[in-house]
Amino acid sequence: MDSCVIPLRHGGLSLVQTTDFFYPLVEDPYMMGRIACANVLSDLYAMGITECDNMLMLLSLSQKMNEKDRERVTPLMIRGFRDAAEEGGTSVTGGQTVINPWIIVGGVATVVCQPNEFIMPDGAVPGDVLVLTKPLGTRVAVNAHQWLDQPEKWNRIKLVVTKEEVKEAYNEAMFSMATLNRTAASLMHKYQAHAATDVTGFGLLGHANNLAAQQKNEVAFVIHNLPIIAKMSAISKACGNLFNLLQGRSAETSGGLLVCLPREQAAKFCSEMKSLSSAQGASNGAWIIGIVEKGDRRARIIDKPRIIEVPPRGSQGANQDNSAANPEQCGDVS
Amino acid sequence: MDSCVIPLRHGGLSLVQTTDFFYPLVEDPYMMGRIACANVLSDLYAMGITECDNMLMLLSLSQKMNEKDRERVTPLMIRGFRDAAEEGGTSVTGGQTVINPWIIVGGVATVVCQPNEFIMPDGAVPGDVLVLTKPLGTRVAVNAHQWLDQPEKWNRIKLVVTKEEVKEAYNEAMFSMATLNRTAASLMHKYQAHAATDVTGFGLLGHANNLAAQQKNEVAFVIHNLPIIAKMSAISKACGNLFNLLQGRSAETSGGLLVCLPREQAAKFCSEMKSLSSAQGASNGAWIIGIVEKGDRRARIIDKPRIIEVPPRGSQGANQDNSAANPEQCGDVS
Repeated sequence: MDSCVIPLRHGGLSLVQTTDFFYPLVEDPYMMGRIACANVLSDLYAMGITECDNMLMLLSLSQKMNEKDRERVTPLMIRGFRDAAEEGGTSVTGGQTVINPWIIVGGVATVVCQPNEFIMPDGAVPGDVLVLTKPLGTRVAVNAHQWLDQPEKWNRIKLVVTKEEVKEAYNEAMFSMATLNRTAASLMHKYQAHAATDVTGFGLLGHANNLAAQQKNEVAFVIHNLPIIAKMSAISKACGNLFNLLQGRSAETSGGLLVCLPREQAAKFCSEMKSLSSAQGASNGAWIIGIVEKGDRRARIIDKPRIIEVPPRGSQGANQDNSAANPEQCGDVS
Repeated sequence: MDSCVIPLRHGGLSLVQTTDFFYPLVEDPYMMGRIACANVLSDLYAMGITECDNMLMLLSLSQKMNEKDRERVTPLMIRGFRDAAEEGGTSVTGGQTVINPWIIVGGVATVVCQPNEFIMPDGAVPGDVLVLTKPLGTRVAVNAHQWLDQPEKWNRIKLVVTKEEVKEAYNEAMFSMATLNRTAASLMHKYQAHAATDVTGFGLLGHANNLAAQQKNEVAFVIHNLPIIAKMSAISKACGNLFNLLQGRSAETSGGLLVCLPREQAAKFCSEMKSLSSAQGASNGAWIIGIVEKGDRRARIIDKPRIIEVPPRGSQGANQDNSAANPEQCGDVS
């Protein structure tokens, strides 16, 4: 499970908490703070929890930075973390900072819940539909962006992508990683989600497998569609299938929720996600990506999945509706 | 405050939590795990909290270790952490591990409390007595132990201490750091403690100052006695007052609780601490170290404090009663 759930000594309440920390992957320290916070909270959101009672921030500052850089960067990271926490309706009270060779940023999210506040991720049934709430490809976008300054690496991809497209994709990845999965968590209740997880270091297929393994029923997850930040699948192919993106193995940071929904709810979930997201100025949506059938509690991607190219926010294609909010598009779903 | 206290949405309950992580300072990975756990829990114990609902473990493994060493050391650290958590009546559910140049070990302790379970650290009144529940000098002992293999450094202290004494002191420090402050937390309730904190990175005086600054009443803390692991004050002096141990500035790891007790309770607190500790096979006790008087919310150590040499467990002097469990020994206390 994405968070631990501990029954408390006090009338029916549960303590739910999670921790995560990692190394910076975007250059903007403020955005890095936001991403770290969104990433920690995401484990609560994956359980349909929309509130958080407290956050701690964990920070290690690099001994290799000079005093001046450290004094410039640290407050920005902390502010980004705090701002994202505030957006999540919570606050940061406590934490710990050490000096270390590398920068580390992360946190702890804790909430005390009544039983109806969280959705145990084990209720998928055959016929359910799988929805993903952020596009894949964040790690590819971050790496491609680093290659802008590395001619040898850039040469491998310059035939399939422009510098402008890489910058747009990097920007999209950064904002996507910094977006809270809170709206998705709240819609999980409205549309009676049966199970969910968030997509992070193990990639879409890794987390789908973990989720499938936890199900009470004998089900399998079959993934037909891969919504990917535009051009990232081309980059991946040009690099000999970089990070196994198209196999669902590319690590994501602060990825979307993978949600199992009753078939009749999935399209409505996607459409409300899309309208709420754009109302908040985000271009994130939700995509129907697969189905749940009877099986041996594993997940797989079909042989030739449909790649949904998700245009970066602000780009020309950003206003197209590509949310595929229609279960019939998932091959044998009907 | 040592922990953050967050009022919850549920009937009068509070969420209390704390986090701490640091770099290993003893060579034994199992003991290091225990120390890390004791150190995290200590922030709860300082508030008189004796229960913990959940712990998370935070771990970064060193990239510089080879696979074999990593596989040997990691399970031992985790087991030490878990064993100490179990001794504290709690368990470790969750955590995060990363690879990093340096090893980092730490955790998060969380509890949901009713108001009578914790003691806000702000109730000291003039006439109170200050008690310390572990001896000082852990950092000096750890460093002196490293010097056994560094002739240049060893030469500075070899006139005041033997190798055997350094090994005994290191052992004492290791076991002391790994000892939970849980007994002290429970006695804080029995003997109506007015405030407490735990002594860690800022040293005795640093934490005493922090505690004094938080008091509701205009009080000052005056420290007369310094219980120190035997020979560590001699080492400190021989090194030009190493770490400012005798000024109360030497960092401690997982140090004791500094507790403000009503004058008539302090001796009983110390004597029960001592008997409970020895029943558990620990030689930790408790020492009356100072008094609370009217003042400007600061702490100070008198000019020539009495050094209480605390013999290492297992050593010849270990069975002497040196707990100074008598307020009259604090100069002008009467």
